[in-house]
Amino acid sequence: MKTSVLSQLGQRSEAPPISWLMKLTLDHPHLISLAAGFTDSESLPVEETRELVNDILGARQSGKLALQYGTTAGDSELRQLSAERLRRLDAAGGPSLRRPKLQGRPHAVPLPAAAVYSPDRMLITSGSQQLLYMVTEALCDPGDIVLVEDPTYFVYLSIVQSHGLRCRGIRFTEDGIDGGQLERTLEALKRSGELKRVKMLYLVSYYQNPTGITTSFAKKVEALKTLKRFERAAGHPIYLLEDAAYRELRFAGDDVPSALAVKGASERVIYTGTYSKPFATGARVGFGVLPESLLTVVLRIKANHDFGTANLLQQLLTRAIGSCQYESHLAVLRRRYARKAATMLKAIREHFPANVTWQAPLGGLYVWARLPKALKSGVKSKLFQSALKHDVLYVPGELCYAEDPGRRKPNHEMRLSFGGASEADIRTGIARLGATLRELLDG
Amino acid sequence: MKTSVLSQLGQRSEAPPISWLMKLTLDHPHLISLAAGFTDSESLPVEETRELVNDILGARQSGKLALQYGTTAGDSELRQLSAERLRRLDAAGGPSLRRPKLQGRPHAVPLPAAAVYSPDRMLITSGSQQLLYMVTEALCDPGDIVLVEDPTYFVYLSIVQSHGLRCRGIRFTEDGIDGGQLERTLEALKRSGELKRVKMLYLVSYYQNPTGITTSFAKKVEALKTLKRFERAAGHPIYLLEDAAYRELRFAGDDVPSALAVKGASERVIYTGTYSKPFATGARVGFGVLPESLLTVVLRIKANHDFGTANLLQQLLTRAIGSCQYESHLAVLRRRYARKAATMLKAIREHFPANVTWQAPLGGLYVWARLPKALKSGVKSKLFQSALKHDVLYVPGELCYAEDPGRRKPNHEMRLSFGGASEADIRTGIARLGATLRELLDG
Repeated sequence: MKTSVLSQLGQRSEAPPISWLMKLTLDHPHLISLAAGFTDSESLPVEETRELVNDILGARQSGKLALQYGTTAGDSELRQLSAERLRRLDAAGGPSLRRPKLQGRPHAVPLPAAAVYSPDRMLITSGSQQLLYMVTEALCDPGDIVLVEDPTYFVYLSIVQSHGLRCRGIRFTEDGIDGGQLERTLEALKRSGELKRVKMLYLVSYYQNPTGITTSFAKKVEALKTLKRFERAAGHPIYLLEDAAYRELRFAGDDVPSALAVKGASERVIYTGTYSKPFATGARVGFGVLPESLLTVVLRIKANHDFGTANLLQQLLTRAIGSCQYESHLAVLRRRYARKAATMLKAIREHFPANVTWQAPLGGLYVWARLPKALKSGVKSKLFQSALKHDVLYVPGELCYAEDPGRRKPNHEMRLSFGGASEADIRTGIARLGATLRELLDG
Repeated sequence: MKTSVLSQLGQRSEAPPISWLMKLTLDHPHLISLAAGFTDSESLPVEETRELVNDILGARQSGKLALQYGTTAGDSELRQLSAERLRRLDAAGGPSLRRPKLQGRPHAVPLPAAAVYSPDRMLITSGSQQLLYMVTEALCDPGDIVLVEDPTYFVYLSIVQSHGLRCRGIRFTEDGIDGGQLERTLEALKRSGELKRVKMLYLVSYYQNPTGITTSFAKKVEALKTLKRFERAAGHPIYLLEDAAYRELRFAGDDVPSALAVKGASERVIYTGTYSKPFATGARVGFGVLPESLLTVVLRIKANHDFGTANLLQQLLTRAIGSCQYESHLAVLRRRYARKAATMLKAIREHFPANVTWQAPLGGLYVWARLPKALKSGVKSKLFQSALKHDVLYVPGELCYAEDPGRRKPNHEMRLSFGGASEADIRTGIARLGATLRELLDG
């Protein structure tokens, strides 16, 4: 046996950080995990889902529909509802668009038809993760370049890594990527003749994983303009892949319109959203909105992956959204996360040393804490090991940085999730982490 | 815009045959489709599923579990139940193993522990299709070779095509592939120096799609032995990918043990099964059993695809199997398909000309009809067009043949499905097809 039987992708696929984080959790039964991106268990819509499923399966006709294969693109009613919902969100979101606010009830605000939000540009996926994977497959060959936020969603980095892609990290500011650096990066790639390898810019634009930061609409406009200017030299479109996985988990501030709302840019925007986090992570249903030519290709890939997301789950979400149960659940969820975030921030203020900084999130599941640069937070650091000894787990910041030859990976940050842990555990966990931090900073 | 922005895979991805077959169905609202691989709608377990979901979501604890993320490998109880079920099937199946028959009830037959059926070698997937995709990703680079049955499952050919793989078709006999041709093919590849590109042999071993043929245990033993002999020259393992998607849909004859039961060969067998077809295609849950080293890689790929199949669906199947509702539903389903198959065969005997041949299936969803070689059945053929004019659709046999430089694609066969159509439609559809066939053969 001299050569590997594995493909290049197979050989490149590394153990995802999530798997050893989960193993640590299993090895430490009393561990308080502030690492997992789990959603809040207590507020899961158990009773609502039971009722909705009873409605679907209580009638023979809708029952049979839900238990039979659907189409690869997904249920047409769910696409219709999702497209409409997205259009309303975009129309209502943010003062920049000067449109009336979303009233919480569908059909309340009459809006002009907008081709960009057509259900025909949409497909239903098994969570938004599957869309990220398929879009990457459709666009990128080994050696191609994806521009990412610095830091970014670490599971996306696993996709990138297994496909043999290269990354350039664009510095993240308080309202999105640094437009100047995006431009300089593209200029440098143009000079080195690598611009044709650049396929897209990946943005986690709402309550970002891991930083909690939301990208402003102005930054989206700017980014699309910048990408456009380099297309001629690239020889092909450069897409903006907007990952809006946390958009619905807004508990303060205004919504921001998506990049789909940027005038004239819809042919360059790939938008992905999900109902997993805002409704139930156990019912994985996400969706994507894509330029038509790309949608065609992604649908072919989806046909090969699984020829369509489980219809029962799609019907569940169709009913949930159609009956406004989804909306009411969202309201509950937002209050819940607002409270859990406040609990975490209060504990951080109480227990963390003064030279640890953070930004209060307006949504999502995460607080991003920056330590003094001398204090390492990585897996092998004293901090991580000491936290583990005190039964607390966080995601080391370094995991969220792409391999980028242009800079060293920062190694002094922590992603803290208030999603899965109970409020009591959040308080205890942060207190223990605070004690560890003080010990190491004083010591 | 000079170059394509798409990846090689994106550029290679072709419109799957299934998509235009579906379009034809939409364009012809009165069409009787004997083409779709849909399962029987009337026997879908609507009420059973409703009860099971009520059980799961009726209790807060199991409800929360079902609506939260699970692990990438899948629910441990479902893996346990699936592994045990598979072991019992393999132990009971076929006289060749000289073991007591499956009694229909779990725990009835004590069996020795067998490491090969360990739940630790298993992962849960979104249908068996997803496993086929991921295994192909894990093993094959563009230019690699997959050995397939001739004919084979046409969606697998789409996966192969999009990944830029090459195929060699191995002639199919009445109990599986022609062992002699397998050997000659491998010999020829050895001589041409291409053996190192051969990664696996793909077999749809039960009530095959499209032919309905079941591979005998002896043929599995023989195939594994042959593959093994060429491994040294290949420089790596050559796997047998056994697709058992239709195994549970047996309505006559004995079950046959899977290739996992072949002594000493478990490290070379990748087995995939599904609960989609035998339970509900709208609740896509499948599973795979893999050699450990390969499982590790496929789990990493699965983490990137979707980090785990929807937990709600997994809990549904866990309950269905654990409560034996799955078993009772299977009994109903088998009687139903036996009847639909008999209806189709009776109609074929009545209406098809004498020089059309077929083999009565013992399970699955398909009858494979062979026409006189002069009578073409392809998409552009008179037969296909005339059938369409009479509102009947079948799958042209040519779609089920891989691109293989060694032979022309046969073009005189039809796959006829009795899965989705009602008995009345089966009768009418076959009668119309028979009339068309007579017209063309007489004309």
